[in-house]
Amino acid sequence: MKTILFPEKERWDALSKRPAIDRTYLEEVVRDIIYKVKSEKDEAVSFFSMKFDGVPACNLKVSPDEIRNAATQIPDELKAAIDLAKKNIENFHSPQLRTEPPVETIKGVKCWRKSIAIEKVGLYIPGGTAPLFSTVLMLGIPAYLAGCNEIIICTPAGKDGRVNPLILYTAQQVGITEIFRVGGAQAIAAMAYGTETIPKVYKIFGPGNQYVTKAKEVVQQDGTAIDMPAGPSEALIIADESANPEFVAADLLSQAEHGPDSQVVMLTNNKEVLEKVKAEVEKQLLNLPRKDIASRALKNSMLILFQSIESCIGFSNRYAPEHLIINTAYPDSLAGKVINAGSVFLGKFSCESAGDYASGTNHTLPTNGFARNYSGVSVESFLKTISFQEISEEGIKNLGPAIELMAKAESLDGHKNAVSVRLKSLQNV
Amino acid sequence: MKTILFPEKERWDALSKRPAIDRTYLEEVVRDIIYKVKSEKDEAVSFFSMKFDGVPACNLKVSPDEIRNAATQIPDELKAAIDLAKKNIENFHSPQLRTEPPVETIKGVKCWRKSIAIEKVGLYIPGGTAPLFSTVLMLGIPAYLAGCNEIIICTPAGKDGRVNPLILYTAQQVGITEIFRVGGAQAIAAMAYGTETIPKVYKIFGPGNQYVTKAKEVVQQDGTAIDMPAGPSEALIIADESANPEFVAADLLSQAEHGPDSQVVMLTNNKEVLEKVKAEVEKQLLNLPRKDIASRALKNSMLILFQSIESCIGFSNRYAPEHLIINTAYPDSLAGKVINAGSVFLGKFSCESAGDYASGTNHTLPTNGFARNYSGVSVESFLKTISFQEISEEGIKNLGPAIELMAKAESLDGHKNAVSVRLKSLQNV
Repeated sequence: MKTILFPEKERWDALSKRPAIDRTYLEEVVRDIIYKVKSEKDEAVSFFSMKFDGVPACNLKVSPDEIRNAATQIPDELKAAIDLAKKNIENFHSPQLRTEPPVETIKGVKCWRKSIAIEKVGLYIPGGTAPLFSTVLMLGIPAYLAGCNEIIICTPAGKDGRVNPLILYTAQQVGITEIFRVGGAQAIAAMAYGTETIPKVYKIFGPGNQYVTKAKEVVQQDGTAIDMPAGPSEALIIADESANPEFVAADLLSQAEHGPDSQVVMLTNNKEVLEKVKAEVEKQLLNLPRKDIASRALKNSMLILFQSIESCIGFSNRYAPEHLIINTAYPDSLAGKVINAGSVFLGKFSCESAGDYASGTNHTLPTNGFARNYSGVSVESFLKTISFQEISEEGIKNLGPAIELMAKAESLDGHKNAVSVRLKSLQNV
Repeated sequence: MKTILFPEKERWDALSKRPAIDRTYLEEVVRDIIYKVKSEKDEAVSFFSMKFDGVPACNLKVSPDEIRNAATQIPDELKAAIDLAKKNIENFHSPQLRTEPPVETIKGVKCWRKSIAIEKVGLYIPGGTAPLFSTVLMLGIPAYLAGCNEIIICTPAGKDGRVNPLILYTAQQVGITEIFRVGGAQAIAAMAYGTETIPKVYKIFGPGNQYVTKAKEVVQQDGTAIDMPAGPSEALIIADESANPEFVAADLLSQAEHGPDSQVVMLTNNKEVLEKVKAEVEKQLLNLPRKDIASRALKNSMLILFQSIESCIGFSNRYAPEHLIINTAYPDSLAGKVINAGSVFLGKFSCESAGDYASGTNHTLPTNGFARNYSGVSVESFLKTISFQEISEEGIKNLGPAIELMAKAESLDGHKNAVSVRLKSLQNV
């Protein structure tokens, strides 16, 4: 871990920079996969599943029996844990579904908005050694609450052709039964364009490897919406002298174990805390099963000492972390100063893992500094807003002359005429 | 205009298809412009302004004097019209700024969301012969209401180096004074990367020609957010026997005059209405200053006869129009059936021009079928949402064991440890 002492403001931007991710070398191979899936559909999907994942050709769609049987393979206490997480996520996301009253903007002109679910959405769930069934909850629950008509999951199968039962079980718990065993860029292409078996969707959600990420970028250019741009996961922790170094170190490591490119940063106004956390990280690292991954991530990580906690918050806003843990004596007073972050964890018991799994907030969050201009996934991510307006005789009389003048000034006489014919008809009455 | 009678459902998808827009041929030239502006900044901006718009090198930033003087060039009645529009747009957009109460998802776990303005945003306003000052209102007002810290405008100057006074005046009315005389792809590049004079922004809004659109696509891939993907403007009108053909024709033409690639569609369940509208369009077209543009757009336009108004709504949802005008005897009963549309105009006096200028709704809307998966611009477009959570001792006791189990099942022991160290500390107390 790099230790940086009292960096001057001029350095903050440089310190906030994430390593550049160059995916241009993937462009050709991913475009080729997408092109083939678009034209040869299921056949191409099976071909690439065999080629990249070693999955033999099999029914792309997971059968109802397979989904039902998944439950028998999950221990009861894990089922109860999933159920608790599900309830909390529902509790947090349900109020995001709102209706808005109409506004009479001027006498006779009634305007309103209505949020309506995107009809067809696709969720990509990474598979492999660590089945991200928590992501099934984080994407499936808001999709269900929004009322999406068709919710499908694509997730890669193992070499035995089977999808991890935890993913199947969790999907079933959130009401999703359209599950397809396909991963990688071929899965994204299948959802963007549709195949004989896999339905086309209008928006694609979910994390994935660099092929998945690149494929999402490419299909976005061709009209399929995506949840947000992707990047390696990251956490920034602000700790003062009240923080327990053991907790801080555990939080840093829980981020570092995600992947070798994970970003881990700690800011403090206390040199002793910095030293203690550093020592504690080294100690805890030894017992971590994923210590190889974590130690590679830690090589790029930073422990930064600032003069004050205010400077820590200032730097954090510049950095715009995906996860921000404020482990200080008075975290509430700092919460109001947060401008750029994906999700914020306040106080010593609010660890990031809580939000990753079960507190109720969503764990699909903007990384890579995108917290400056993107929000995390919410029920709104699965909705679009339509505006409506109803204008009465009185309304068009009130508005009409202004519209005529403005349209004329923009040289759009046809726009003016649409008002003029209506105003004229009212004079004739 | 093409007349289509009783198309079968199998044809609906084909009829809903917009002409493909291929911008790949722009890729090279636009990437070159972006690359040059990124490295040579102001110098490159001035070079391209001269090259493409014939604007001689001059101060890129519009001076306070120029902005103030603009007001003297606008007739008072047009000022009053702009003021009326501004008030209505404010009335409609203000309630979009909301706060949400916290949710206690489980005892001891308090979660909430907070919407915070994107700090720096850039508005692109097309200039030239038809200065789109209405777009200054439609983007500037929600940006201001959201509370964006830095709101800038880029808009091309004329060959005399001057920006249209209507744009300057309107910008000033909505509180924007950082205005830069630059258009095209070079303006988008300048806002995405910043130059000596033009500040870098985090999100770019606004319509533009194909260079602007392509440049927005390119900078989006590199981390700058954009409002939405672009396409030609379009309107779909549903009319029954109660509709006044003169109104319907005027609405079709007001859409057609936008550009030769505008999409204009009318659906009806009444053959006579179809014939009358067709005749009326031909009649009104003759008097339209932009009749050349409009008649080219009309060549691709469709008048479609259906058996019922329900089929009209069904087709419209498949088509997903930017603007949907429901000019029928009972529009309210149909409003509830709209699933895909940008903005909906109900009843005979609700013409699209009203929403384009002054009713209060936003006119920056998803085109090209994007109403299936995107919303129009709103105050939310200028905000991002941050989630917060605060977990007490009781909270981590309630949640902890479930998190440990789930993290373990995802093979993320570091995530589990972050909880375990906290639970252990509580046992020791």
